[in-house]
Amino acid sequence: MTQSAEHIKGIAKYVCYWILKMTTAAGSGHPTSSLSATDLMVGLLFGGIFRYKVDDPKFVNNDRLIFSKGHASPLFYALWAAAGQVSEAELMTYRKFGSSLEGHPSMKFKHTEVSTGSLGQGLSVGVGMALNAKYIDKLPYRTYVLLGDSEMAEGSVWEAIMSAAHYKLDNLVGIIDVNRLGQRGQTMFGHDVQAYADRVSAFGWHTIMIDGHSLDEIHKAYEDASGIKDKPVMIIAKTLKGKGIPFFEDKDDWHGKALKEKELEQVLEDFGDIDMSVRGIVTAPDEVSSAPYEPEQVTENIEYHDPITTRKAYGNSLVRIHPKFPDMIVLDAEVGNSTFAEYFRDAYPEHFFEMFIAEQNMVGVALGFSARGKTPFVSTFAAFFARAIDQIRMAQYSKPNINFVGSHAGVSIGEDGPSQMALSDIATFRSLYKSVVLYPSDAVATDKLTELMAEHKGLVYMRTTRGDTPILYDNNEEFRIGGSKVLKKSENDQVTVVAAGITVHEALEAYELLTKEGITIRVIDLYSIKPVDTTTLWEAAKDTEGIITVEDHYLEGGVGGVVKAEIVDICPTFKSLAVKKHPKSGRPKELLDYEDISARAIIDAVHEIVNK
Amino acid sequence: MTQSAEHIKGIAKYVCYWILKMTTAAGSGHPTSSLSATDLMVGLLFGGIFRYKVDDPKFVNNDRLIFSKGHASPLFYALWAAAGQVSEAELMTYRKFGSSLEGHPSMKFKHTEVSTGSLGQGLSVGVGMALNAKYIDKLPYRTYVLLGDSEMAEGSVWEAIMSAAHYKLDNLVGIIDVNRLGQRGQTMFGHDVQAYADRVSAFGWHTIMIDGHSLDEIHKAYEDASGIKDKPVMIIAKTLKGKGIPFFEDKDDWHGKALKEKELEQVLEDFGDIDMSVRGIVTAPDEVSSAPYEPEQVTENIEYHDPITTRKAYGNSLVRIHPKFPDMIVLDAEVGNSTFAEYFRDAYPEHFFEMFIAEQNMVGVALGFSARGKTPFVSTFAAFFARAIDQIRMAQYSKPNINFVGSHAGVSIGEDGPSQMALSDIATFRSLYKSVVLYPSDAVATDKLTELMAEHKGLVYMRTTRGDTPILYDNNEEFRIGGSKVLKKSENDQVTVVAAGITVHEALEAYELLTKEGITIRVIDLYSIKPVDTTTLWEAAKDTEGIITVEDHYLEGGVGGVVKAEIVDICPTFKSLAVKKHPKSGRPKELLDYEDISARAIIDAVHEIVNK
Repeated sequence: MTQSAEHIKGIAKYVCYWILKMTTAAGSGHPTSSLSATDLMVGLLFGGIFRYKVDDPKFVNNDRLIFSKGHASPLFYALWAAAGQVSEAELMTYRKFGSSLEGHPSMKFKHTEVSTGSLGQGLSVGVGMALNAKYIDKLPYRTYVLLGDSEMAEGSVWEAIMSAAHYKLDNLVGIIDVNRLGQRGQTMFGHDVQAYADRVSAFGWHTIMIDGHSLDEIHKAYEDASGIKDKPVMIIAKTLKGKGIPFFEDKDDWHGKALKEKELEQVLEDFGDIDMSVRGIVTAPDEVSSAPYEPEQVTENIEYHDPITTRKAYGNSLVRIHPKFPDMIVLDAEVGNSTFAEYFRDAYPEHFFEMFIAEQNMVGVALGFSARGKTPFVSTFAAFFARAIDQIRMAQYSKPNINFVGSHAGVSIGEDGPSQMALSDIATFRSLYKSVVLYPSDAVATDKLTELMAEHKGLVYMRTTRGDTPILYDNNEEFRIGGSKVLKKSENDQVTVVAAGITVHEALEAYELLTKEGITIRVIDLYSIKPVDTTTLWEAAKDTEGIITVEDHYLEGGVGGVVKAEIVDICPTFKSLAVKKHPKSGRPKELLDYEDISARAIIDAVHEIVNK
Repeated sequence: MTQSAEHIKGIAKYVCYWILKMTTAAGSGHPTSSLSATDLMVGLLFGGIFRYKVDDPKFVNNDRLIFSKGHASPLFYALWAAAGQVSEAELMTYRKFGSSLEGHPSMKFKHTEVSTGSLGQGLSVGVGMALNAKYIDKLPYRTYVLLGDSEMAEGSVWEAIMSAAHYKLDNLVGIIDVNRLGQRGQTMFGHDVQAYADRVSAFGWHTIMIDGHSLDEIHKAYEDASGIKDKPVMIIAKTLKGKGIPFFEDKDDWHGKALKEKELEQVLEDFGDIDMSVRGIVTAPDEVSSAPYEPEQVTENIEYHDPITTRKAYGNSLVRIHPKFPDMIVLDAEVGNSTFAEYFRDAYPEHFFEMFIAEQNMVGVALGFSARGKTPFVSTFAAFFARAIDQIRMAQYSKPNINFVGSHAGVSIGEDGPSQMALSDIATFRSLYKSVVLYPSDAVATDKLTELMAEHKGLVYMRTTRGDTPILYDNNEEFRIGGSKVLKKSENDQVTVVAAGITVHEALEAYELLTKEGITIRVIDLYSIKPVDTTTLWEAAKDTEGIITVEDHYLEGGVGGVVKAEIVDICPTFKSLAVKKHPKSGRPKELLDYEDISARAIIDAVHEIVNK
């Protein structure tokens, strides 16, 4: 220990004091869950183990600390106060409107790596950061993740545990705060630390069991962890919830409850002296940096002429743009030969990570890479992003830069049937804060949009189609986030059909057939669903009698709703064609027709408006 | 074995033949993934182990078989053909439009327990069925779940494994088909069956490693499994993908690919004779039944007068209605003291199961109970249902009867901040096939709606509010799925405000303040968001100048979109107040105002319409 045991104890006492103070001032929060981990975290930050530039949180070689048990935020903030990074006045703003000290750690606080608070997610983020250190940036920084014992019931934690062992992440240290008590009573294993050790070590980790309130054992555990090679390390610490405060130590019914003012006064009477001037020193990391990336000139777009699936165009595009975006990382959930992320894996294996069928961990890992300044592309069947919605939900609050690409969307996948059909993915990704949702209808659009995704900083989702689609666009056609393409337009357009992806081709087929009848329609390819091209939609709503949207997606939350919202003030006749019947197996064309989103269905809808 | 080894082998050959035939006829499907598990499943069904009335799939004491690796559907259907339950002509309709033999097992096929195809979900369903047998119906039937090795990477499987061990489910048998190859290459552990055994046994299961192509070892494993007490059993079988067909046995790049006609011809040349008349006998189960439930008369509704949170009303209501619905099962993810499911746990502990913080498994378990004819209520923080969206998505295709209740919805939860705020839960649950979405604004409505949920067969979601809300309704007020309440109405209404849940109270406050200004508004409590009360919305759209929706939910997929869809043809001025800014910590009232969904924001919106 670089700082004396007495000094560390003094810091722990100071942290404990502020945990109580700030939660009582807030009238809520989790003091007991903070106190169980106080010794563990004080020992880490101020025991000479953790290496971090306190005045430069973004420094590339800082060790990383993730509070997966985000409800221990009072501890998190009080720790940084002990490091001289938060004033005592600021601590008293905890949980108040406008404070950077939110109820769970958020990006408003400069030392937060990623927003946490939904349990079971932090270890995956840590895996991403550790993968980045070991395989990409090749930096010596280490990643520490504080876990609660309750969250060990989350499968996502075990996905992360499998993944970390597979990639031999000896720069990753998990710390389980086994305080026995969950929110509503005892956890599955209570104080049986051996139960955790058996399970975690069976998964290929090095485990260390300690008394989580012995500063000596804590320090030794961190030191030992630093010496383990080729394995991640889990420190399993037996602790007491509410440690040090007999009023609620190890007692039921004290989860997420702050002391009342009177109770706090009473507790502080027995607390003894506190040195309010005590501060801890966080050891500085080595001044090393990763090799700077040298982006190369963008290569030419890929030329497409024959029908090809947009999935393949995506794979080709990843390979094409990597020189321009050398910080790209590609992750796939064991379906790279379907999403065609495998093209990238084969071309740039060092920037590709196989995530196996563990979508929750994959998204957490992507967030870890994003937090370390990388540009992850994450692909699987669009339907299976549903597995990781909570991770995606939390990512939206972490200033993310993640590109999601879902293949096999809609009933048009055909024979595999409903389990493999993404039918609410557009709804899901639209509902994320400041997200972008793209849905190209051909390979040229896919190629251009993939490059735009890499350029855009934020959460982007692109939907690809299983089957081959004809090429609609010239190689020099320009696309933009928030754009659309008017594919058919005349002064006599009677009805507008707004389509996206696979249904653009149905709309074009309907156009041809209707033209023979003497009915002209406008056809819009709404390749950018969010943000949406308001101007083009408005113009169409004014120019034509009615608007028909057609999409291979459930009615709820899809393209129809987007378009309706834009044109509600103009109020043309409106029809929304979408998947409304129970989906089933069959040939793609049969299913498009069965769900009334085919050329035939579009023609019927146009007739209804024209003959009204 | 009740049937000779030769006979069993003949059945296996017959099954193998049809796996090849039907996939080639379909032009797609997963023959190799089916062949690896053929011996395992033929040995189970026809080895005298599995006990099932083939002509009465719903019989309560049937053993249950779940293909968690649903892509092995050719095996599933061919097995039942060997049992005389599917004709050879029907096998040839596999994956065709209208066939009951879909790409992945669906409810159209009478022997399917639940739809599968999204990996990693079947074991949780099995846990639900085994819990039902052991603790609820107290029947001797056993539940078998066939797992793929790739899906062992899914955290949800480990949630199920933890849960099954915790509840000592010695009537549950998992079978891992370790065929080494995933979709795009080798799995994380390849043929290392010991790796699976180490992990599964560390989690408290009895494990048996076998050669998955030795009928003797298979039979002995099932026999041994039946004798294990207080532990679930995992049979870990080393198999070969594409077993028996040298053309693709144990070879890469054959996942999900059917043989072409010519290839099949070639393969069948070396196949030898097949006895097309061979049929297997499935042993019948004991003729025992569970005690019939005797529903009692409904008790009186609970009287509410003082403000109380709708969460508590939910908990009270569960206790109140259980005598009327004795088949109710209540599950909660370790937050029963927040959702108030604990009221039920305390009153009827034998019908309550603690699911710990493992939402994916909780939903799978609920589906298992639903499939066994029970009425599960599943609660957690609304935000954390996001963890189980893929399980919920798959449940929609399994003729489910599940009631989801999410507490702590919206920014009005306050200080805990965004990680705990459900802001797209309405969007999610609305997008499910034939779902019902409810959002009561007071305790009386909650009480009535909880009873309606128990009565309704299907997927229902109810959203509850964290804070106390005043009582709006008399105890004799009637509610219905698809209904709404017009709380304020006059002939002079200028604008209609449509609110739900917490915002109903904001709308009423706005009403009072606007009345003082001489502006009258109509206020609608849209407690049933799906299905929605079209008539009342139409009337309001016709009667008033504009419609304002106000909701504690993201704009996308929420109440605003529902209302807009209904009134688009009438086309009044429309404003949608919803959560649009990055949510944060603060007091509930501050946050409602910050997001412009407060009484103040409603008044501003009304002024804009009135002064237009």
